[in-house]
Formats: sequence, structure tokens, C-alpha cells
Amino acid sequence: MTGPEMVNGFTGEHLAGQPPHIRELLDRRAKVLGPGYQLFYTNPVEVRRGSGVHLYDSAGNEYLDAYNNVVSLGHCHPAVVEAVTRQLSILTTNTRYLRADLLDFSERLLATFPAELDRVTYTCTGSEANDLALRIARAHTGNTGVIVTRNAYHGVTAEVAAFSPSLGPTSPLGPHVRTISAPDPLRHGAEVVTMLRAEIRAAVDDLQRHGFGVCALVVDSIFSSDGVQPFPTDLLGVLAAEVRAAGGVYLADEVQAGFGRTGAGWWGFGRHEVVPDLVTLGKPMGNGIPVAATVLRHEIGREFGRNVRYFNTFGGSDVPIAAAAAVLGTIDREGLIDNAREIGAHLARGFAEIASGHPRLADVRGAGLFLGIEVTVPDGTDPDRALAQSLVDDLREHFVLVSASGPDGNVIKIRPPLVFNDADAALLLERFADAAARVLPT
Amino acid sequence: MTGPEMVNGFTGEHLAGQPPHIRELLDRRAKVLGPGYQLFYTNPVEVRRGSGVHLYDSAGNEYLDAYNNVVSLGHCHPAVVEAVTRQLSILTTNTRYLRADLLDFSERLLATFPAELDRVTYTCTGSEANDLALRIARAHTGNTGVIVTRNAYHGVTAEVAAFSPSLGPTSPLGPHVRTISAPDPLRHGAEVVTMLRAEIRAAVDDLQRHGFGVCALVVDSIFSSDGVQPFPTDLLGVLAAEVRAAGGVYLADEVQAGFGRTGAGWWGFGRHEVVPDLVTLGKPMGNGIPVAATVLRHEIGREFGRNVRYFNTFGGSDVPIAAAAAVLGTIDREGLIDNAREIGAHLARGFAEIASGHPRLADVRGAGLFLGIEVTVPDGTDPDRALAQSLVDDLREHFVLVSASGPDGNVIKIRPPLVFNDADAALLLERFADAAARVLPT
Repeated sequence: MTGPEMVNGFTGEHLAGQPPHIRELLDRRAKVLGPGYQLFYTNPVEVRRGSGVHLYDSAGNEYLDAYNNVVSLGHCHPAVVEAVTRQLSILTTNTRYLRADLLDFSERLLATFPAELDRVTYTCTGSEANDLALRIARAHTGNTGVIVTRNAYHGVTAEVAAFSPSLGPTSPLGPHVRTISAPDPLRHGAEVVTMLRAEIRAAVDDLQRHGFGVCALVVDSIFSSDGVQPFPTDLLGVLAAEVRAAGGVYLADEVQAGFGRTGAGWWGFGRHEVVPDLVTLGKPMGNGIPVAATVLRHEIGREFGRNVRYFNTFGGSDVPIAAAAAVLGTIDREGLIDNAREIGAHLARGFAEIASGHPRLADVRGAGLFLGIEVTVPDGTDPDRALAQSLVDDLREHFVLVSASGPDGNVIKIRPPLVFNDADAALLLERFADAAARVLPT
Repeated sequence: MTGPEMVNGFTGEHLAGQPPHIRELLDRRAKVLGPGYQLFYTNPVEVRRGSGVHLYDSAGNEYLDAYNNVVSLGHCHPAVVEAVTRQLSILTTNTRYLRADLLDFSERLLATFPAELDRVTYTCTGSEANDLALRIARAHTGNTGVIVTRNAYHGVTAEVAAFSPSLGPTSPLGPHVRTISAPDPLRHGAEVVTMLRAEIRAAVDDLQRHGFGVCALVVDSIFSSDGVQPFPTDLLGVLAAEVRAAGGVYLADEVQAGFGRTGAGWWGFGRHEVVPDLVTLGKPMGNGIPVAATVLRHEIGREFGRNVRYFNTFGGSDVPIAAAAAVLGTIDREGLIDNAREIGAHLARGFAEIASGHPRLADVRGAGLFLGIEVTVPDGTDPDRALAQSLVDDLREHFVLVSASGPDGNVIKIRPPLVFNDADAALLLERFADAAARVLPT
């Protein structure tokens, strides 16, 4: 079964060339898994074991994992294993009982935010966190209109899929959803703020003209699915101001950028010098244990709290909270935010150096350990998706895991665990240089 | 902050009477938790530790847990601790890599279903499973209309809250949602099937008249929030046939009734002798680790799979799957379905005996370890919510945890872990008899 196109998705095209044990797994997947499942890479990767920055397949091959952002502390970090094992042996219940662990962690988590962001509600996934944030925003604003970037991804509930255009043209946007361009300095040049201010004003007008009003601007603070766009940092404040002036709120989706990944404090919005009204967290929050959250200013939640009960059986239950506490503590104790900044800067310099010898690598950009490399056609900035895919696949064949992103699928997306060290970075750069030499036309 | 009314919810009314350490926890909750959170009981319960069928507070009090259905194997079951610890130390990744563990478990899980139900998609919560099931049903049927029972609860995403009337009058239903009565033999008598057939036909007509068409009938196989209604068992087949004739599908919500709880096989719908088109699973699936799923007939998923990608970062990831495999194996190995049937029948007889001496306990009903006891006014079947709450609170003061349910909040809901043994049952009956003697007017 092939579904809609996905960047770096396995299409089944190379089925015949797969080794027998891979074909067997593919066959079993087709017989039991529900609709919509997809695999990564032209040649899918089988995994058996993970440790630190490495994944291993059943043949014992060691992959350098420069992609998985859930295991932000590295695969199988002992602090998380220990915390989860301990908590599982003590208690796992829910938020309808009084529990000090829930409050201890909530206080620590909120201390990483600006003071205005003073309340937290737990969910299990980033999708649920965004879904809840929208319900809260709707109750607060009385409006329904949502503005997102053109290739945004925010999740998979019915509500959130309706404002996740990156799910593709066969997954329709809601009638109350408008899109604006993501920043793209390579193509927009210095005019990007002016241009996007005009776009968001048009979106606001159009939502009001249709009677939806403006509920929320929802932005991934690193624009991951829009091709990883860390710059400019003076844009989000401008967009948030426009939306607030129209009665809406600004929701920072930190599921990708949060927990120190951008190397500039805990949260990606911090680089942009604007304090959101709501913030959603997810992926790396439990280093593999499902846990996510919506953080908000208390006044934004008032109307929702007056009318609606929200109970999430596993959201805020003891084991996810124990995992999240271990992650927060480890990021702090191991200095992983500083590490993300330093190793990230080193990687950015290294990639830029490689790119200087390859005109098809038109741009290298990043914040901390979230990097994007643009692959373009010769003599221009038009995207070259096939070439980007070749690079991703070549790296995979040489045991380095990265992926691609962006509306045109031509941006190499690099997002290693935050524990990446100098040697890991050196190996990644070396393998990338080799792959570029093999794959890119000179 | 008080929110909308909840059955057996802490209202803050008795705040002044709470001991200092409870007041401190309440105060901290109010300062950090987001909108919509609620606690159980007039006097909230603080928990520190759980083991088997018991919970313990910080003063060392032992509570008999006859309510928590997530920890279906009992609190802190060693099989789950062991499986999760092992998996966390080996690997935690996602469904976009080829993994044998995912397929091994999927095959075992699907083997517990009728052969037609042959595909599974993983999510993290029952809410996400219902949200996904509806998206799939909508793609398949081309319709949007949803029919649920009058006090149904199916979850908290925006999509699912719109067809969860038990969230109360301030949480509005969607325009495409119609409700029918839940079965209530105490009040409907023998006419219940005839009556509900007429109701669902009216709902179908009305959905068609409004242009929504019929997408899905969604029913919790034990009607938990409708007051626990295990009978009659010849109803769901009739309702499913009506909906199918109108082009819709039947979705069995097994988040509450599933995994052996009703003591009659793995799934609650089995008692009703009808095979659903989609089934959603949740709560007890990982004994405290967040994991849930949507199971479906492959042909129902075809249209969704053609157009939509569905990726849930944690859904189907290694640790939740390891927990779910441990739960499935333990239910099997420890004979917990038989135990639920036998201990459940014993409890039902014991409660019926107690009720025979208390006319205000108008009905005792149950399937396996899911029981409901109706508390009514004298000389009639009108519900007595306050009296039910007094009984729940009295039991809580005597260290037995149960709750209440139903549109009128007057049905004592009893739902102990599946490992409840004879001695646990004897203690529960004894404490219940004592509470009834103290609380119920003679």
C-alpha cells in the first residue's frame, strides 16, 4: 500500500531490491498495520538497539543517529531508565489524586519559562498539546481563525491536522485556516519581515471578512517542516503583535525546538525575544516516554476552565512525570544547552566549509543542534529535491541517519541528540563531506 | 478555581476542613496547573505508593483500590516493570523504522479479535484512538454524522469532546452529533430494544435531513459514563445494523471495557455478539504506560490510507509496545479474564445481597469486574445523587476507593484491578455493607 507522498518516505519502489529479512518485515507490516503508516528512506532501516548517539540493526551495523530528537539525551540514557524503573515500582496513577511529584516537576518546569507563562496542563503527545491549546485559545478569544505557515506541521488530531498543511494536498485544511509564507532569507532577502507583515495582515483581514475572527497564530519556533528557518529573529514579535491587535493569541509550538535544542536557553521562542501566550511541548520531554504539555498564561485559561473539564488519563501521570523530571535534570546537570550551542556552532561552520566547495549546497543554517542545508539546482535557488534525497540515502547507506524537510523536500534536516560530542561531530562532518563528494555534481 | 460540575469531583467547598499538608498541595496545584483540572472526592485523596490492589497515602494509610482500571494487573506489576526497564535499556524509537517487536505484538493483539478486525494503528491515548477512528470513518463513509448515547464519554480532543456529552452542558456538542438513550432496563423495562431502535432511526433521519449523513455509531461497550449498563446484550447488533444500513460504521469504544474487564473474552463487544467495524483501546493497555490503539477492518481504512499520512511519534514506539506486550501476556498467563468473570460474579451476588436489605440500592448490575449499583429515592427509581456521593465519600473515609457515574451521578461505579482475589472481594463487600449501614436511611 502506498499512501500520499512524504519527504524521505519509503515508496515501495525498491521493494524487489530489499534483502529477505527486510522483505519479511515489510510484508508483516502490510498485513497488520493500519492505514497511513510510512517508513523512512529509499532503503528502510531496521533497528534493534540504541545507545547514546548510535542505533544498531540486527546485522550489528552501527548508525550515527543525527536525526532522532525524541531521545534528546541519547538512546537509553541511564538517568531516564533509572527514574522510570523506580517510579513504575512505586506508583502510577493520575492527576485526580493529590501528588507531590506532579507539583514538584510542574514548579521546576515553569521556572524555565518567563514569569508570565505560569500554568501547565499535561497531555501525552504534541498533537494533544496543540489540540488542547487551540481549545483554550478559542474559549479565550471567542474566535476560530488560525494562521500557520505554508508548510507547517503541528500534529495529527482532526483539529490539528486541519492546520498542518505539510500533511499534503490530500489532507484538507479547515475553512478557518489561513497560511502565510515561512521566512526564507535565501529567497526573500532582507525584505522578509516587511513581506510577512503584509501577508499576516491579509490573512487577518480575510479571517475577519469570513466571520471567523482571529483565534491564534501557531508557529513552530524553528520552522522545521518549512525547511528549518532559524532567521530572522525579529520576525515573530512582529507577527505576534499583528495577531494580538486582532484579538488573537500567539501559540509557540516548541515540540521540535524546545528543551534546549536551539542552544539558546530552554525554549526556541527565546531567540526571537517575544513571550508567547501559549506554548506546547512534546517529543524530547520524556526521552522516549510519551509526555507532552501545554504551558500558558493563567488569564488565557480562565474561560476554558470555567466551562470545560480536561482530564487526560496518562497526561501528568507518575511515570511520564518521572521521565520528564529526569530529562529536565539531566539537561541541566550535563550542560546540554551549552553543548547544543557549541557543538551546533561547530557543525554549522563545518557544513559551511563543505558547502563552500559545492555550489549545490546553497545554504547552511541552524540554531544549536537543529540544522538545515539547502540543496538547489545549478546557478539558482530553485530546490533540488531528488538530489537532497540522494544525499540522505547515501548517508544512510554509509550509516549516518539524517532526513530532509521543507515544502520542496530539498533541505537536509540534521537534528542529533543533544549529547553529541566533538568526535561525533567530526565523524558526521567527515561522512557528510564524503557523501557530498560522491553524490553532488561538481 | 472551580470548574464545571463533575460526578464525585472535589468542589473546594470543604477546603477549610482539610489538614495542612492537603491544603498545601491544593494551594500548589492552584498555582501551577492549567485550566480544567479536577480532583476526586469531597475530601481529596493523596497518594504516595501503590502495590497490587492497594494505594497508600503519606500517613501510611492503606486504601483498597476498587476503582483504577488503568493498572488492570494491579499497581506496579513486576512483569510490566521488568519489560519496560528492559526495553528502555535497549531501544526506544518509532514506527518509521522496521522493528520486529512492533509486528510481534501487533500479530498477538490482532489474534484476540475476530478475523475481520485485521489492522491496528497505535496512538498514545484513548482520545487519540477515537479521534483517528473518526477520521478513518469519515474518509470511508464520506459522511460526518455521529451518534452516541446521551451521557457518553469518548475523550478530550476537540473532535472527540464534540461527541462526549458527559463533559456537560458547557462543553457543546458538534452540529453533526445526535444522541440516543443508553439502555436502562431499570427504567425502560423490556421495551429497551424497541425504544432504542426507534431512537436511532430518528437520529439517522435527522442527520440525513441536515445533510451530514451517517458516519458512525460510537458506543462504549459497557456504557460506563451512562451509568454502567451491561444489558441487554441483544441491543448493539440492532443499533449497528441500523447505522450500517444508512451507510455508517459501528465503532466499539473498548477503552473502558476492553482487555478482559467484562470477564467474557478480551473485548466487551463480544458479550453483544456483534463484530464492530472499528475498535478503540486504551487505559489498561500498558498498565500505566501511555499506549492506545485503533483496530479496524482493512477495507474501512483504504480511503484514509490513500490520502492521509498518520504518524504518532510515541504511538507504537518500543517502550509502550513492550508494556502492552507484558500486559497481554500477563492477562493470559495469570488467567485474569476468568478471574474477572468469577470474582465479578461473586461481587455481584454479594452486592445484591446487601442491596436486598437496602431499598435505596435499587439495582446491582455488572459484567466481570465492572459493576454499577443504582442509588435511588424511596419508593421509586428516581436517582439520588447526593446519597450516592455520601456512600462514595464514606467508603473513601474508610479506605475503599470507588466512584460514581451515570447522567445523574447516582450509580456507584466499581472497577477494581483484574487481580482482585477472594479476600479482596470479601473485604470490599464487608466495607460496603458497613458503609451502607452507616449512610443509607433504613
